[in-house]
Amino acid sequence: MACEKTYESCNYFGDISGAYKLNEIEQEPIDSISKIKLKLEDIQEAHNRIKNYTTVTPIIEAKYVGNHFCNVLLKCENLQITGSFKARGTFNVVTCMTTAEKGKGCTVAGGRNFLNAMTYSGLKESVPVNVVVPKDCSLADRQKYKENYAVVKVFGNDSNESSLHALTYCDEIGSHFIRCSDRLDLLAGYGTLGLEILSQVDKLDAIICPVGTGGLIASILVAVKSLKPQCLIYGVESSAAPTMSRALQEKKPTIILVKPTIAESIADKIASNNAFHIIKRYLTKMITVDDLWISRAMVNLLEREKIIVEAAAATPIAAIMAGKVPELRGKNVVCVLTGGNIKLSRLPHIVDRGLMAEGRLVGFSITLPDGPAEIARLLTKVVDTGADVRSFEPERSWIKRDALNVTVFMLLETSDPSHAKELEKKLLKDYPHSQIISA
Amino acid sequence: MACEKTYESCNYFGDISGAYKLNEIEQEPIDSISKIKLKLEDIQEAHNRIKNYTTVTPIIEAKYVGNHFCNVLLKCENLQITGSFKARGTFNVVTCMTTAEKGKGCTVAGGRNFLNAMTYSGLKESVPVNVVVPKDCSLADRQKYKENYAVVKVFGNDSNESSLHALTYCDEIGSHFIRCSDRLDLLAGYGTLGLEILSQVDKLDAIICPVGTGGLIASILVAVKSLKPQCLIYGVESSAAPTMSRALQEKKPTIILVKPTIAESIADKIASNNAFHIIKRYLTKMITVDDLWISRAMVNLLEREKIIVEAAAATPIAAIMAGKVPELRGKNVVCVLTGGNIKLSRLPHIVDRGLMAEGRLVGFSITLPDGPAEIARLLTKVVDTGADVRSFEPERSWIKRDALNVTVFMLLETSDPSHAKELEKKLLKDYPHSQIISA
Repeated sequence: MACEKTYESCNYFGDISGAYKLNEIEQEPIDSISKIKLKLEDIQEAHNRIKNYTTVTPIIEAKYVGNHFCNVLLKCENLQITGSFKARGTFNVVTCMTTAEKGKGCTVAGGRNFLNAMTYSGLKESVPVNVVVPKDCSLADRQKYKENYAVVKVFGNDSNESSLHALTYCDEIGSHFIRCSDRLDLLAGYGTLGLEILSQVDKLDAIICPVGTGGLIASILVAVKSLKPQCLIYGVESSAAPTMSRALQEKKPTIILVKPTIAESIADKIASNNAFHIIKRYLTKMITVDDLWISRAMVNLLEREKIIVEAAAATPIAAIMAGKVPELRGKNVVCVLTGGNIKLSRLPHIVDRGLMAEGRLVGFSITLPDGPAEIARLLTKVVDTGADVRSFEPERSWIKRDALNVTVFMLLETSDPSHAKELEKKLLKDYPHSQIISA
Repeated sequence: MACEKTYESCNYFGDISGAYKLNEIEQEPIDSISKIKLKLEDIQEAHNRIKNYTTVTPIIEAKYVGNHFCNVLLKCENLQITGSFKARGTFNVVTCMTTAEKGKGCTVAGGRNFLNAMTYSGLKESVPVNVVVPKDCSLADRQKYKENYAVVKVFGNDSNESSLHALTYCDEIGSHFIRCSDRLDLLAGYGTLGLEILSQVDKLDAIICPVGTGGLIASILVAVKSLKPQCLIYGVESSAAPTMSRALQEKKPTIILVKPTIAESIADKIASNNAFHIIKRYLTKMITVDDLWISRAMVNLLEREKIIVEAAAATPIAAIMAGKVPELRGKNVVCVLTGGNIKLSRLPHIVDRGLMAEGRLVGFSITLPDGPAEIARLLTKVVDTGADVRSFEPERSWIKRDALNVTVFMLLETSDPSHAKELEKKLLKDYPHSQIISA
């Protein structure tokens, strides 16, 4: 109750008199492996340092997502400068540098959101930035870094190889290497997101946040649990990369085998050590969601809420839609939409996956006697049910049945799963060799 | 100067004492054809009526669009309830109805944004809504109206035919017909958008707003010109449907031949009469933009600002990007993003058009000796320049040159037009029969 009062009355960006201090509630000493001790004061100082560089991103009340279940508040870090929350950390990194350090410049490698934010922060604070990217780094990304006046060096087949190279390369060119995770200055910057949520939402019950190496959620935990300890905080990972879930099971960060996932910006092999130690103490629960739920969440955000995010940022919504947080019924839940840096050319495939998972895009393989009249009859039958024909491809060469038949592959847009079911029934009646192909 | 003071001090949603009243600045009497006299008071009353139903949509400062030219403020009506500004009008319509009128219900036809908003408003205020849509109305749209408990009737080949049918159909079923434009209650509701902009932006120099039949911009003119007459107000149309531009030329609303455009929600055949009379008196300038600029604006909004809008809503940004408002250099310009109801399956094509227009998606048709080694050599050459291969299609049957050759059609993603140019030069050197196919 004292905490509740503190929450109502204190100014999260400065005055912490009477606030619930994280150190006071710590029962066990910070593990010796953990070298960083992130404190609320670090985050508040970071806030003052970066506030003129970053955006206070809006919280938008979801209109449809979570409807009839809980009140979903979307914290739009996709609208943050550089398109992701990372800018909060990188601006704190560069503004903490001394003039001499700034002059020397820095070398970075890592995920695109980090590189994007780091090169932009460097540009704004006149810090020369060298970026090492792997060969498969997209042209659009390289272009963005160059627009921020970074020097882009291509090395290695994946980001691991380019990161390793960056470590030696920075010595060669006499510049400072900036790790993309587990730095106090980065974490302190990320934590400002937690303070901002507290200042924007009066009745906050829970926060759901995507988790990669764990830096963001750890910083949010420090900020929010210090000031409003009763707030529940959930982490969400892609089930293809359950890095933090595994670390919590094993009681230490462990290298895991990452499977391909659309949520690539949180598909990390190992959890950050410092983040892990904060998370294991204060997190309410870790959740995993699969790509199908993530793509359905993205489709719902796009189509219903008119909000575009990258796949990783849709995981909190996916967790709610997939029924993974039944205990949050009727609660006020902030979902952190961590970023919006989706590759435009990738968007159509993700949308289609989502539509398939929603039962609104269905594939049919149908074998019928070859001939224009028969094909016209099939198409008429389909269109009469109200379905839209996305694609229609007759295949004659590979057909395994007799040569007078043709197999047609059709991709159809339906209004919902029941419509798809009805269509299947109708087609099966006339074409017994039909096959429905769904996600 | 008196006006400036008024703007600084008055509450736009109630107190208009001392405000610059539109009626006072009218030099000539409203034309006799014009039957509606929209006044600031109507808009203020509408605001009080609908404020508990609609969203105060955020104004987001653009980070890239308009950069180095003017300060672009995005008024996000794509985040309005039902995904467009129309809800402001339709909620005013239903809340103005008497209990008897509500019980009788209403019949509507028209654009999807209007129908979406009207069915939703009906649902919320317990007004039975009958919707008449043409045959080509998409499944997703019909589904949405049904989710709002509307009765959906399909009639006619286009929205003209369905609208005409709705007029007789409403008599049959004894329900009230609600026109989709040129009603005082609709316009008064739309005008609340103007009041909201004034309450959100301190230093406002200009507003740029998409124009279809003209209802929205006319209402904004009444609201804003009454309270801040020095604010410039621009209208933008698709050059495929310059309805209002033509009306202003001809000095009266005239039926025009509408060409196909991606900005379909503002592709109207004729301007609203009442809107026209307000616009002709107070509008700063009408602008037209073509589909290429509109798709470029959409790509920039998506990729840079992380904001998804329908094509019509991107026209103000297109106008700035196309250099149509040179006089706004250095000014604070609100761009009204009228709606976000884009059909998801249409999005990829619009994005590709935009990328083509930006010089980042280029088609090549290349003829070369047929054989796997030659084809591999071509692909290697392309990939070595850093381009991404979107599609690669060899064509042998239709080839006009000799039978030992193959023509390959390639769609390539490049980083910018200069990269595309470099690629073209390189390919032309080795394959003199190459053809570049751009937008």
